[in-house]
Amino acid sequence: MNPDIIVVGAGLAGLTAARRLTQAGRQVRVLEARGRVGGRTHTLRLPQTGLSVDVGGQWVGPNQPHVMALIHELGLEVYPTHDEGQNLALIGGKVLHYRGLIPPLPPLVLADYALLSHRFEALARTIPLDAPWTAPNAAELDAQTFETWIQKNARRPQTRALMRLYAGGVFSASPAEMSLLHALTYTAHGGGINGHTLTRGHALQDRVLGGAGSISQRLADSLEDVRLNSAVLRAEQDDAGVTLHTSAGTHRAAHVVFAVPPTLLSGLPFEPPLPARRAQLQQRLPMGAVIKFMAVYERPFWREAGLSGMAISDSGPVAVTLDNSPPQGHPGVLLGFIEGDEARELMDADEDERRTAALNSLGRLFGDEALWPIETVQRDWTTEPFSGGCYGALFGPGVWTGYGEALRAPVGRIHWAGAETARVWMNYMSGAIESGERVAAELLAARG
Amino acid sequence: MNPDIIVVGAGLAGLTAARRLTQAGRQVRVLEARGRVGGRTHTLRLPQTGLSVDVGGQWVGPNQPHVMALIHELGLEVYPTHDEGQNLALIGGKVLHYRGLIPPLPPLVLADYALLSHRFEALARTIPLDAPWTAPNAAELDAQTFETWIQKNARRPQTRALMRLYAGGVFSASPAEMSLLHALTYTAHGGGINGHTLTRGHALQDRVLGGAGSISQRLADSLEDVRLNSAVLRAEQDDAGVTLHTSAGTHRAAHVVFAVPPTLLSGLPFEPPLPARRAQLQQRLPMGAVIKFMAVYERPFWREAGLSGMAISDSGPVAVTLDNSPPQGHPGVLLGFIEGDEARELMDADEDERRTAALNSLGRLFGDEALWPIETVQRDWTTEPFSGGCYGALFGPGVWTGYGEALRAPVGRIHWAGAETARVWMNYMSGAIESGERVAAELLAARG
Repeated sequence: MNPDIIVVGAGLAGLTAARRLTQAGRQVRVLEARGRVGGRTHTLRLPQTGLSVDVGGQWVGPNQPHVMALIHELGLEVYPTHDEGQNLALIGGKVLHYRGLIPPLPPLVLADYALLSHRFEALARTIPLDAPWTAPNAAELDAQTFETWIQKNARRPQTRALMRLYAGGVFSASPAEMSLLHALTYTAHGGGINGHTLTRGHALQDRVLGGAGSISQRLADSLEDVRLNSAVLRAEQDDAGVTLHTSAGTHRAAHVVFAVPPTLLSGLPFEPPLPARRAQLQQRLPMGAVIKFMAVYERPFWREAGLSGMAISDSGPVAVTLDNSPPQGHPGVLLGFIEGDEARELMDADEDERRTAALNSLGRLFGDEALWPIETVQRDWTTEPFSGGCYGALFGPGVWTGYGEALRAPVGRIHWAGAETARVWMNYMSGAIESGERVAAELLAARG
Repeated sequence: MNPDIIVVGAGLAGLTAARRLTQAGRQVRVLEARGRVGGRTHTLRLPQTGLSVDVGGQWVGPNQPHVMALIHELGLEVYPTHDEGQNLALIGGKVLHYRGLIPPLPPLVLADYALLSHRFEALARTIPLDAPWTAPNAAELDAQTFETWIQKNARRPQTRALMRLYAGGVFSASPAEMSLLHALTYTAHGGGINGHTLTRGHALQDRVLGGAGSISQRLADSLEDVRLNSAVLRAEQDDAGVTLHTSAGTHRAAHVVFAVPPTLLSGLPFEPPLPARRAQLQQRLPMGAVIKFMAVYERPFWREAGLSGMAISDSGPVAVTLDNSPPQGHPGVLLGFIEGDEARELMDADEDERRTAALNSLGRLFGDEALWPIETVQRDWTTEPFSGGCYGALFGPGVWTGYGEALRAPVGRIHWAGAETARVWMNYMSGAIESGERVAAELLAARG
């Protein structure tokens, strides 16, 4: 028996779409290339300490209604990110201690940053989230890199460093890799810079009890037909349906949803070929580069020193840290992100070299105690063939204006979901879920 | 019997590699996804007039030693591009007649263009062709778009228009789509702007008698094992060789050469996965957008009016024209290129709409007689699934500096060829051939 709909990709987008379509009475099959569900979320149990950690996406916030509603629906719970104490900033070679949003930089730098971020966010508010290519001056905003804009508008090197840290932390990329229009669009998805980067009230407020991977696991448990280790190798569409040839047999349905990063579809043979705008869009959405590193300690020693565990650093390779200890507060876990240029520098290094480099970064921020964890774990998302990188796709100059219209437009019986297609919180877990719900509604409407 | 080496892609790069390896005594198999050889070259016989035309790459010049030597080796001949008479330029709404290189624009525009192109070419001379990421200030040159540089350095709108025409004609892209470092690198491959854009002594000097497709045809005829309609769907490498699963069976060899546009490999499952830098490079090399249009007339009427058939226009959709009549001079053929933004605007149009738009462009340049051809042909390379676009890949901001080192670096027993990997004349036929010869030498050296 053929299902009504096949969903390709068992990440949050695909599984949400499958759940909604199943709830509406459709027969749905999910095909997943990996041997697990969850996509860019993945909760691992560490072999030595037995601690469960998220090596993929992990935070959610009250400003992200789609993911919060789904967590509630699935009977899962969240707990707050630990953020009490002083933050650290290592900028220009000096470690600063501070509370609140902004490191205590010299007044002229703070004034420059305030002006710059105000200007940037005001521009961001002019971008329609679901159609950035219709923004005023879209062509001009899309013809330059975010880096060009920073160089032109930031007067102080420390201000430039702060904006580059924002790009690294939020886009897992350097500002040279994306267009200004994309930087603005993405920022607007979070309602501004703080929406992306802060805890209470914002995108880093909460973590999922049991790990973010449990969202996908519960979704998958509620479905009847999820097939792992089934990588799609070819797709053929005709008047009555779509046939997918996979590494584990052939499947056919009346409609297909691809819920994977678009770059993974570049080079996948479609018959008939995809329309030019869609095909070239898929060539133009490379994934960010990020390595997630965690070090586990007997106890969160930084808390005893009055530190929150949150830090930013412009000296690499770790650019951002957070306290990632479990809810009971022990063992202590420091989480560090290596992003963009720093991730690329460590791409060819082995795990030991990366571990040493990351621990040295933590040591410069939190002192020598940070050099002696009882366990570490790292995940380089750029080596994951069925993600291609994290957190999500980057839109370089010319892509939104030249190809944006093709991002969600169905091609006959083929529909598109995935975090990259979200109309709100693109590239976040919440965006993935929104895209799954949107594509389900699209299919239900199409069938009357 | 397994061959020693499998070459994936029967374009000029793959076929040249196969020929050189065969000549050195290796058993070589070529796998080609299409039902024809030639890749981005394709010589077609028109159904009505019976004329043979190149709907893909077609020009060669004496500054391109690799393609000239191979043409000679294969017993083929070239003939000169027709370029006698006055050229036309439609810039800012006015049609100008001129001889030589540069349209007779106002003196201040000409001075501005002279200064701008001098500055651009001087910068281009600082780029090492085979390692642009090592150029002085590479990071700075790679952090901005070519468009940003034009806006900053060109003082007159007509000068900007000329540079955009250069980008369209030579990169099949808008200057916003590539980094300045890429624009400089590519320009340096031709020894400057003129090397790419002129006839006598330069890249447009000659055409191949019988069509450029005959180069690939003769190469294929000299090989024993070329298999068409064999699209590679998965690749597995182990200590002893590489296994390729294709749409027409499984093949194995000690070494494999991929000689296809890198973007087509993004999403192809490799086991073990490709190293991160190679995998992410493949996500970051989208293809240009170009539609090649030809109109056939009883006679080359423009020649009678003293015109060369060469024109440039900033009013679209056709941006560049050339006389593409056969060597005997009849019938007359006008060739028009629709590139970059103009090609994108016509992506969703049907063939009739494109034909009308293109003919109207020719009419504005060459008069009403151009509106009434006896036959037309068009090829939108963006709809070709096994090319993904033409003429070749674009390097956006950050790509050369972040990923350039992975462009030619073998991954175990897997080697890389194709026009994108050329050390000279990248993305040209000559570059494809150079890359085939380079990869053959690499494999022969590796085996002692």
